[in-house]
This record gives sequence, structure tokens and C-alpha cells, in this order.
Amino acid sequence: MGKKIDLNCDMGESFGVYSVGNDEALMALVTSANIACGAHAGDPLVMDRTVRLAARHGVSIGAHPGFPDLAGFGRRAMQLTPAEIENTVLYQVGALAAFARSAGAELAHVKPHGALYNMTARDIEVAQAIVHGITRADKDLIVVGLAGSVMIEAAQAAGMRVACEGFADRAYEADGSLRSRKLEGALIHDPETAAERAVRIARDGVVTAYTGEEIPLQVDTLCVHGDTPGAVEIVTAIRRRLEEAGVEVAPMNSFI
Amino acid sequence: MGKKIDLNCDMGESFGVYSVGNDEALMALVTSANIACGAHAGDPLVMDRTVRLAARHGVSIGAHPGFPDLAGFGRRAMQLTPAEIENTVLYQVGALAAFARSAGAELAHVKPHGALYNMTARDIEVAQAIVHGITRADKDLIVVGLAGSVMIEAAQAAGMRVACEGFADRAYEADGSLRSRKLEGALIHDPETAAERAVRIARDGVVTAYTGEEIPLQVDTLCVHGDTPGAVEIVTAIRRRLEEAGVEVAPMNSFI
Amino acid sequence: MGKKIDLNCDMGESFGVYSVGNDEALMALVTSANIACGAHAGDPLVMDRTVRLAARHGVSIGAHPGFPDLAGFGRRAMQLTPAEIENTVLYQVGALAAFARSAGAELAHVKPHGALYNMTARDIEVAQAIVHGITRADKDLIVVGLAGSVMIEAAQAAGMRVACEGFADRAYEADGSLRSRKLEGALIHDPETAAERAVRIARDGVVTAYTGEEIPLQVDTLCVHGDTPGAVEIVTAIRRRLEEAGVEVAPMNSFI
Amino acid sequence: MGKKIDLNCDMGESFGVYSVGNDEALMALVTSANIACGAHAGDPLVMDRTVRLAARHGVSIGAHPGFPDLAGFGRRAMQLTPAEIENTVLYQVGALAAFARSAGAELAHVKPHGALYNMTARDIEVAQAIVHGITRADKDLIVVGLAGSVMIEAAQAAGMRVACEGFADRAYEADGSLRSRKLEGALIHDPETAAERAVRIARDGVVTAYTGEEIPLQVDTLCVHGDTPGAVEIVTAIRRRLEEAGVEVAPMNSFI
Repeated sequence: MGKKIDLNCDMGESFGVYSVGNDEALMALVTSANIACGAHAGDPLVMDRTVRLAARHGVSIGAHPGFPDLAGFGRRAMQLTPAEIENTVLYQVGALAAFARSAGAELAHVKPHGALYNMTARDIEVAQAIVHGITRADKDLIVVGLAGSVMIEAAQAAGMRVACEGFADRAYEADGSLRSRKLEGALIHDPETAAERAVRIARDGVVTAYTGEEIPLQVDTLCVHGDTPGAVEIVTAIRRRLEEAGVEVAPMNSFI
Repeated sequence: MGKKIDLNCDMGESFGVYSVGNDEALMALVTSANIACGAHAGDPLVMDRTVRLAARHGVSIGAHPGFPDLAGFGRRAMQLTPAEIENTVLYQVGALAAFARSAGAELAHVKPHGALYNMTARDIEVAQAIVHGITRADKDLIVVGLAGSVMIEAAQAAGMRVACEGFADRAYEADGSLRSRKLEGALIHDPETAAERAVRIARDGVVTAYTGEEIPLQVDTLCVHGDTPGAVEIVTAIRRRLEEAGVEVAPMNSFI
Repeated sequence: MGKKIDLNCDMGESFGVYSVGNDEALMALVTSANIACGAHAGDPLVMDRTVRLAARHGVSIGAHPGFPDLAGFGRRAMQLTPAEIENTVLYQVGALAAFARSAGAELAHVKPHGALYNMTARDIEVAQAIVHGITRADKDLIVVGLAGSVMIEAAQAAGMRVACEGFADRAYEADGSLRSRKLEGALIHDPETAAERAVRIARDGVVTAYTGEEIPLQVDTLCVHGDTPGAVEIVTAIRRRLEEAGVEVAPMNSFI
Repeated sequence: MGKKIDLNCDMGESFGVYSVGNDEALMALVTSANIACGAHAGDPLVMDRTVRLAARHGVSIGAHPGFPDLAGFGRRAMQLTPAEIENTVLYQVGALAAFARSAGAELAHVKPHGALYNMTARDIEVAQAIVHGITRADKDLIVVGLAGSVMIEAAQAAGMRVACEGFADRAYEADGSLRSRKLEGALIHDPETAAERAVRIARDGVVTAYTGEEIPLQVDTLCVHGDTPGAVEIVTAIRRRLEEAGVEVAPMNSFI
């Protein structure tokens, strides 16, 4: 069997009169959509429109739960208790699943958003709370987590399927962690460089760290960003180079 | 077959540190719970607790969607478009259904809350939007609406099961409509009087209007209020008198 | 004394990561800014930035209170009690005034937003509630209301200064009311036509109704829209034509 | 001059239909009220009612800004930037000041709420951001901070008047810090014990630490809690014992 990789992107982050992202163009390029659930972004109309758009493109539909903080777009860490995290995840996943079913589709995966996602790199208590929320919603869902994070451990311990995530447009440290956005060189803006890294990760299972070492990186899905200026160009380049390299780009729920 | 009637009550209307109602005591007395879904009241922790409480008592679990207006407790009319109403209903019902399933129970019915409920007496466009939202969530749900309202028409036209609702502690006008709360005599506070009316409605299918006429009133479920001072006394009296009169008090999903 | 007119525009309607409008460009063209106060749009950082921008341009700073409905951008009518309206207006005006003072400027006027504004055309109870809220905040504020509306009456009855508002890019009916946006021809998109109407209103005190009649229209300020595609072009044209016609474009608080 | 002490209490924390606290009874016993500003609790109607109640009792009116998190009652830490903190404080203080002025009173002090207050014990960046927000609202306001905290330093560095706060019903560690609520013995429930400690703090400037040492504690104001079961009894006991001990209980703005 040849190599397969999923491309996932955050979607449905508009709210009321406020519009962000470029969901129409990106939905034709990615294979999984992480759709905001009305807590950090999104509203019922946006959720409905985005789920239908994904279903039309055969894109795998995922819930993208975040902290209940619209003003901060879920990017500000909040000290919720594990029970609060678990139940807000269940709430958000349950709501999005209803839109998916009503569009004749099925919810396939869950990926936490923003500050909540960042916490799952190392905070096992937060990771377990999220996993419990997902498990309560549906035991067949795929849990998306940063490759090497405690989120992956927590999901596997709970018997859930996991998708290990990597980034083609983010620098990695030699220990396999993501280079902090606060440091120089954290982001890769050139489409061809990002695409080249995508190929190395997907085909060869390695990435070159910021300090030059080649490190192993096994991922099932690559995150692409929809809200940056050259988003469409980067994703187009990544997709083309992956296909040229013989890597099949496919929805995560088709091969995990 | 003997007469059967359901007793429904709004539940789960606490929020964060704020506590209202007397769900613990009332859950032992009613047969259906309309549980707030986080829009006009309720939050994920409250929803979880309330759904489990209902499941423990064998009480039929219903979603109680309302306008997204916590400050107004869903009691202030808002001019949402039909699409906004339909999708916020789907959102709220979907979220609550996830809690029900995770508690090993099933969502059985949906009853709109507050100003949204009031609109369904006569506004067919609002009623249809709500029914569409419910239908998209699950075609097997029971739609609870005021007896004689356009909500009942809209739900039946959509092929949904309906529960016609009446009130033992509200006065009726001669045309079968509820007497406005702004008018004198709209509310009945005496437990025995309310209980007497409950029996007349449930057993005989009639109620005495404010102006003295005896009018027909066919209902499947009686609404009891949980947030009034003598709530437990009134519901206790209603339940006792119904059983003394040979009316079986049972969850709506057992006989509709 | 020559003719004077103010040009006002809604500003500061971004929220969190969500950005709308073109405040930077428009602030150089208008003379009064109606700044959102965090209820229908805006947040503390946006308010701060917008107030400073207005102060730098010598633009008259106004509060733009709206219904507390971010999801609906304050465009959905809500049935608040007069006391709720009065106190939310006081709250929002008080908050914005603090930003104005802290920028070394002063709050000059208040104009209600969206559905709240629309209600002030004919609903005297709503208009009075708003005026009470404004009066409690500061008796020296100018109340901006639609020319011919009950808002103007309510403000004058309370002894407040008023600014009668007109629209160069909206059609008027023969009775002086605004033509409903739901009807054909309600909006004027051509910059030169709008500018021509602005001159007729400001210099001559007349406007041609949709049905062809020339009707009197006395206004102190013209509303220009900042969120439409050709906004900058329209406002540029209006301002140029007004100045060519000998009408002085000046902040409302300089001549009312 | 004899010893003076202020008694402050959080007030106005009801919201919409949700009611908490016992403001009516406590307002007669305390000398300063910290009034919620609509972010963590409170709404415009509650703010109006609470400000008027304080004014009627001659109680010093303070703003009680908190994190914008109604669901968490401002008790969950949120990672806001200093600019976000500064401007939300200005926003909340500005709004409450408008209610105070409209009631013929004046805003006298500001005390941060919940998680925001807790951060000001040691986080100088947060403390400075809050102080900047207060300073921008009004340079004459008194900043209330935990005795010995960086909040007091930050306020003094900014040239603001400060009120050092202590707790009669909380245990202290030997280093003068508050004993964590998570540890045994953190709270003192007995009214007479709390009152005894109040006298020792106010009259003698000392408190007995949890580990037995007598430590110095200079405070201007004692915080009393309004939301605990025996609140009125505790405050009554504290006030009586203070007066018996010859300590004058007076609003902070009368002696700072």
C-alpha cells in the first residue's frame, strides 16, 4: 500500500456578520475540515453552511471545539476544570454532529482549537478531559492530536482511533516539539518550502529541525492554515507536490 | 384503555454559579423534563447533571430550546429569520441529545421556551422553522405545542408526532387561548384548584374558561411550573388528584 | 452664516479577530463617528483604537449603543422593557465616554444602532427610554435621530440638543419616511447621484421622493455608510460636491 | 486620631433572572460596596439598583471589574494581554461610574474580582495593566489591593491612592500571604473568631498566622463575604466587636 496523508484545515470560523477565512476555495483542496462549534467561533448558520460545503466536496467533517471565548477566538488559555472541559467538548461535538447528520453526512473526527489544542501537547489532565468528552459523544470518532503529544496517549489509552498531526509550515525543534510562534523562524511562508517539507514528512517520515537535524515525524494528517494571506497558494503547492511524490491525499477516515 | 396524561416541567435552568428551580424535588413528581440547552439558560455541566437526574427517575428527556439571550432568559421576543430559528433549534437539540445519549438515555421530545414558545401559538412561519429544526435533528422526536396552536398544525403537516399541551394553573379564555399574564386572574395559585382543573382537563377533556363557559380541551401533557414558590405543593396535589381520579400519569413517549 | 452639515458614519464595529469596515480611510472624510460600545459590536480594544483615531482627525466622537446581540449585530429587534433599554444605553454610553475622556477628547453625541434606531422612528416609548439613558449619562450630549421621528420629539421634550439625520444614499417616500430596504430602489449606489442628493438636502433642504415629489427635509447631519463596497468613493464624492456647493462640512458639535 | 477601618463587600452580582447574595441586608452593615460591572456578573438593571442602594446607605461605591466570563463568574484565570486587561478595566469602570454619577454619587474605588484579583498578588504585569486602566478612568480613584501584593506597589508607583485589604475570615500563612482555599483551615466560619481577628487586625495591626506566629498586617479595609450562609451574622459580629474595641468603621474614601 502506498503512502497516504490527510490535509486538514480549520473552517467555519465566521460569526454573524463577521466573515473570516476562505472556506469555499480551501474546501476543494483539503480532505478534512475542522469546523468551529459556536464557542470560540461559528454560529448555527455558519455551521450549517460549512458542513454542507464539506459534504458536497466529500471532505471529512470534524468538530473543532474551543474555549467559550468569542472575544478571544479561543486563543486565550482559560482555567476550566476537567469536568467543564469534558462537558463543553461533549456539548460542542454534539451540536456539530447534529448538523452533519442533517446534511446526510457523519462526524468523523474531533480536533481541539487554539489554546485548548496547545494545552494538549503536555497537559495530560486537559487531554484526558477532552478525550472523555469525545468518547461520550461517539466512540468511533477519530481524535486528532499533535504527533508526540499527551493527547495521542490519552486517546489511545481510551481505546480511540487517533490521527497524529504535523505542520508543513511550522518549524520544529530538535526534540520534535513545535518551535514557539514567539521565536524567529517559527513560521514558513514560502509555498514551495512548505510543500517540500510536506513531502518529506508524508513520504519519508522525517522533518528537518530548526537547528538542522533530521528528525523522525510520523503523521497521519497535515494541518494547513486557511486564514493567512497566501493560504490557497500554499495548500495548492502542498497538494500538488504530495501527489507528484506519489503520496495519496485522502480523508483521514478513509485510512485510519 | 384508561386515560393517560403526562406532566412536563422546565428543568436545568441554572447557569454557572447561578441556581434556580428545584429540579431534585420536582424530578420525582413529573414524567417529562424540558431541559434548557445553553441558549436562554443552562450550561454543559447543568445539562449533564439534569439529564442524568431525569434518567435516574425514568423521566422522559426533552430539549427546551430558546432564544440566545441569557440576560433575558429567553423571555424577550427576538426577530430572528426562519433560517436562524431553524438552525439554532437544531444546534440546541443536537447538543442536548448528545448528553442524553451519553447518559444511556434518549431524547424524546422538544418544547420551545419562553418567547419562542409564545410565538408558536399563532405565527406559522416561526412554528414551521422550529419544526424543521426538530425534524432535521430526529424525525422520531415528539413536538410539544400549545393545544390548538399553529405549532401543532406545523408539526402534524411535517409528519411528526405531537403532544398537545395544557395548563392547570393558567386561566383560559372562552376561545381556548391562554388568558394573558398581564390580565387579572391569569394565574391560579391554589394547589387544590389547580389540581381540580388538571382532573377536569385530563379525565373529561374540558376546562372552565375565565368567563365561565365549559370548553373542550384535549391535551396529552400538562405543564407544571418549577420556579414558583409553592411549586412542589401544586405538583404534588395535581399528581395525587389525577391518580385518585383514575388518570394514569405517564411519560409522553409511553403513549404518544 | 452659510449652510453647514455634518457627515456621520458608524465606526468601531470590529470585534476580536473579526474586522469590518474601513475606519482608517473614512475617518479622514467624515466629521462625526458613531462608535460601537461592545453590545452589538466592538470590544474594549476596538473602542480604544477607534476613539483615538477619531480624536486624531478632530472627528466628533459619538456613542452608538445597540441591542446586546452580537450574533445579530444589533439588527434583530428585541423586546426589551423601557427600563432595560434606558439602562443598557446608560451602560454603553458610560463605557464609551470613559474611552473618550482617556483619549483627551469628549463624547459629543449618541446615535442608536440598527434595530434600536429603527424603532425610534415611531415608537415613542422606546425613544423616551433611550433619551432617558442618554440624559442620565450627560445632559450636554447631542441626540441624533431620524428627521421627523419621535426620537427628535422625545429628545426635545427632555431639553436635549438634537441632530436631525438624513440619508443621501437612501430613497425617501413622499411622506418623508425612508423607503423600506425590502423594496426596489431603496438604496442609491451611484456616488454622483448620492452626492447630488446630499447637496440638495444640505443646501436647499429638499429631497426628491421615490415617487417624484420634491419634499422638504431639514437635517443637521447626513449618514454615510462605511461597510458597503464603494463606501470611500461615495463619501469622497459627497464631501467634494458639498464643498463645491458652498456647504461647510463640520462636526455637529461645532454648530448645534 | 483613633483607628479607622473600612468594611468592603462584593455586591450587585445578580444577573437577569438570576439572583445571588443578600445586598439589601449587607448594605446596612458595610461601608464600601464593590459592584460588578457586567463582565463576570451584573447587568445594567442590577448595576443601577445596586448603585442606588449604596448611595441611599452612604456606602462608598466601587467598581468590581472581572474577567469577561459570566459562565465562570470571573473565577477562572484567563490569559488576556496587558492591553486587553487595561481596556476591559477602563470599560467596566467607565460603565459603573456612569451609574454612580446618574445616582448623584461618585465612584470612589476599584477592586478587581476573582481570578483577576488573585493574579494581582504576584503578577506585576497584570497589576500594572489594571492600574493603567483605573488611572485612565479617573486619577482620583482608590485602588484596593491585597496588603503586601504587587498591586499595591503598582498603584503607588502610578501615584494612585491605595487601600490595603485584609481578611478576617481567611487564614494567613507566616509570610503574610493568604492560605490557599485548597488547604485545610483556609476559611474561618465562626462569627466570633472572625470578629476577634478583625479587631486584632484593625486595632493592633497584627494577625495570628495558621502556624501560630503573630505577624504584622496593616490594612485599610476588611473584605467581608456576602454569599456565604452566615454572611449577615459574621458581618454583624465583626462590626459590633470593632466598635466595642474603639475602632471606627468608616468608608475608605473618608480617611484614605
